[in-house]
Amino acid sequence: MLINGKPGDRIACSDRGLQYGDGLFETLAVVQGRPCLWQRHMARLSRGESVLGLPPSDKQLLQQEALSLCKGQDQAVLKIILTRGSGGRGYAKPNPCAPRRLLSLHPWPDYPQTWYTEGLRLGVCKTRIGRNSQLAGLKHLNRLEQVLARSECQDALLDECLMMDERERVICGSQSNLFMVRGDNLYTPDLVYSGVAGVVRELVIELAEQLSIPLRITDLDIQSLLDADALFVTNSVMGLCPVSALNERRYDVEKIALELRRRAQDACVAP
Amino acid sequence: MLINGKPGDRIACSDRGLQYGDGLFETLAVVQGRPCLWQRHMARLSRGESVLGLPPSDKQLLQQEALSLCKGQDQAVLKIILTRGSGGRGYAKPNPCAPRRLLSLHPWPDYPQTWYTEGLRLGVCKTRIGRNSQLAGLKHLNRLEQVLARSECQDALLDECLMMDERERVICGSQSNLFMVRGDNLYTPDLVYSGVAGVVRELVIELAEQLSIPLRITDLDIQSLLDADALFVTNSVMGLCPVSALNERRYDVEKIALELRRRAQDACVAP
Repeated sequence: MLINGKPGDRIACSDRGLQYGDGLFETLAVVQGRPCLWQRHMARLSRGESVLGLPPSDKQLLQQEALSLCKGQDQAVLKIILTRGSGGRGYAKPNPCAPRRLLSLHPWPDYPQTWYTEGLRLGVCKTRIGRNSQLAGLKHLNRLEQVLARSECQDALLDECLMMDERERVICGSQSNLFMVRGDNLYTPDLVYSGVAGVVRELVIELAEQLSIPLRITDLDIQSLLDADALFVTNSVMGLCPVSALNERRYDVEKIALELRRRAQDACVAP
Repeated sequence: MLINGKPGDRIACSDRGLQYGDGLFETLAVVQGRPCLWQRHMARLSRGESVLGLPPSDKQLLQQEALSLCKGQDQAVLKIILTRGSGGRGYAKPNPCAPRRLLSLHPWPDYPQTWYTEGLRLGVCKTRIGRNSQLAGLKHLNRLEQVLARSECQDALLDECLMMDERERVICGSQSNLFMVRGDNLYTPDLVYSGVAGVVRELVIELAEQLSIPLRITDLDIQSLLDADALFVTNSVMGLCPVSALNERRYDVEKIALELRRRAQDACVAP
């Protein structure tokens, strides 16, 4: 683990990441010593820095540190945290500020192989996702809603739980983005007010265009998901996983275009 | 500064307070060696622990540690942070979990005396406050919205900025709760969907009842604030402060019941 480029695993309690969740993070798949989808993760980080008013981090330095940490790792997870650093009184930002960057390596999770062949079992959680157009899309450190949602998955022995906003629009899973298949068309929730704009979500949107699959970014409710032909979820570590069931409704994995699945899965683990 | 009762100022980077804002905090005024409004702060902490599914902390132990830290302090600020501790994979909670408690002492802020005599200058900030009925009222560690709102105050050279939700209802200030005076009546925003249920807000609501001042907890918009006779804001450290102006609209501080102001101010700093 590296803190501002130096080995270490402890941080000042005064860090605003801890005090207020004042920072951003990225979680990357690492394959054969290299973090995957690097440019996409860095692009999202840059957008977050801009919204939060953080000085832009040195992406080349981040990459050097990431590569040194990932060296020799066949398969792992890299987490990058950027905080506003210490200082400021109360919520007020310090000026100037000295951001901290934390890079840590984690074991590859043991997702069951059936997630890829048969799909995940989904439910809908009670925890709602807040609406805030300014922060929507970013992967910031305020993730209490996801923690509570994930906890509902655990309690219900589900693989993933869908989160709705207060208007009962489905936004995402507790740790994934959501896609819906109906006929030849793809749909994914609009993230203008809530949710994290996942890098694999972005990748799938681009792949759909390359494969001439019509895709609409739109509002989705539970009923439209139940009426769909298939669902799948995405994130940087799991890649693209089909959904086997939402509550009692079962889906046919074969209804997801095979070429899209293959290409997405390949791109997610391309070193 | 005490971490789980021991002196220290650094914390494991794996702490979920940093990773996800997975925790709670309280900010208390300290006068003559004693934290003020202790029971009220502990009651809110308990509510937060219950919603977040944290094991209840030992409040007697917390008080012992707080008193030992505050000893000899004439006037200071005590911050208590409770996190879910380290562990868990991704958002999933560790089970069992070992929460961390951090107590730190900070200098009393140098609020200008004119805040109490003439009042604060307020604006309305662009940063919206998210709606989430599950987390509303709690003082949890996800405070990015307040950080951005506070930053708008700094930029605009205002004392405080009001935050609205996406429905344009005024919820609170960036670091305070809001009250409105119209005639003999008091109004304060409903915090069912957003905002922090401040301990001084709670105190003022009780004082209003004792003083037979009719008080309504309701939805407020900017126009109703501009039409009001007076406004005031509250928090644990500043106590009760009148508002001198909201944008161009100026208010008469004398329209706030003097007895309410006196009693609230006294209660906030009673050791």
